[in-house]
Formats: sequence, C-alpha cells, structure tokens
Amino acid sequence: MARVVVDVMPKPEILDPQGKAVHGALDRLGFGGVADVRQGKRFELQVEGEITEERLAEIRNIAETLLSNPVIEDYAVRIEESVGVEGGAA
Amino acid sequence: MARVVVDVMPKPEILDPQGKAVHGALDRLGFGGVADVRQGKRFELQVEGEITEERLAEIRNIAETLLSNPVIEDYAVRIEESVGVEGGAA
Repeated sequence: MARVVVDVMPKPEILDPQGKAVHGALDRLGFGGVADVRQGKRFELQVEGEITEERLAEIRNIAETLLSNPVIEDYAVRIEESVGVEGGAA
Repeated sequence: MARVVVDVMPKPEILDPQGKAVHGALDRLGFGGVADVRQGKRFELQVEGEITEERLAEIRNIAETLLSNPVIEDYAVRIEESVGVEGGAA
C-alpha cells in the first residue's frame, strides 16, 4: 500500500479568485509580506500493491481526466511511501 | 522571495464526501486498485523576504486561523525554496 499525492493548481496565467480572496483577507487581517496566494486541490490516493511504471501512468491518466481540468489546471503526481504519517497539525 | 505551501486535509476520522465521490467515480470508470481517496486543499503563498522562525510562526497562525478549520482539518506547512518551478503538467 502506497500513498500517491496529486496536486492540482490553477495554471499561472489563469485568474484564481479563491487565492485572490485569501490574499485580500490576509491584508485585512494584518498579515503582511505575502505577495501572492494561489489555491488548488490536493488528492491523497491510497493505492493497493506496488507502484509500477504502468500503475503510475494510470494514476497520471486519472489526474489528467478526472482530478484536473487540463485547460485551466496543472497537476503534479508524487509518491509518498510513508503511509499514515501525515503528522497531525504542524 | 520564497514559496510556502500549506496543505489542508480533512482529519482521518472525519467523513470526506468529496473524496468518496472521486473514489466512486474511479470505480465506475474502471480504475481499480485504489483503496481510498481523500480530497483537501493546497495553498501556495509567495512570501516576501527571508523565511525566519518568526515568519514561519506567523504562517502557521494563518494556516490555523484562515486557511483551515482546525475542528475538522489538519494542516501542514512546508517551505519550497524553488520559486516558480512548479513544472507544468507532470
């Protein structure tokens, strides 16, 4: 069992209203020094068995077709072998 | 300028309907071998200047008060020095 993380972020050239809203809130709440905020999605997939090249290609396919909209979003797939260590709130 | 990433995920004991929906869709689309899916949020903050301990404490404060709901979500803060290298769609 391995954990695969898929990060989906709006492409740099795409306006990100959620990120803009967070950025505006930071200013209003007095947190300065943040130049920009982008908000995206993070998916954690618990994958059964070994992660082979074939398996990874399938997961990339999932990321591209189901988890992201490739017109406006980029995705990144990475393997986190350490299952179940997410480490609480820090 | 440094990039700080804040990952916000539903706590393990909290039901995650979005993740469940994705998991169900994977099954229907014929992608087997995925035991579980959790969906969360990923924030990328472009922070001005050096990341000091004090700055990091402030970002943790932002993550806890603005970016996450600590009752139902865990957050993780990490520094990604490599600014602007997100690496397209892969």
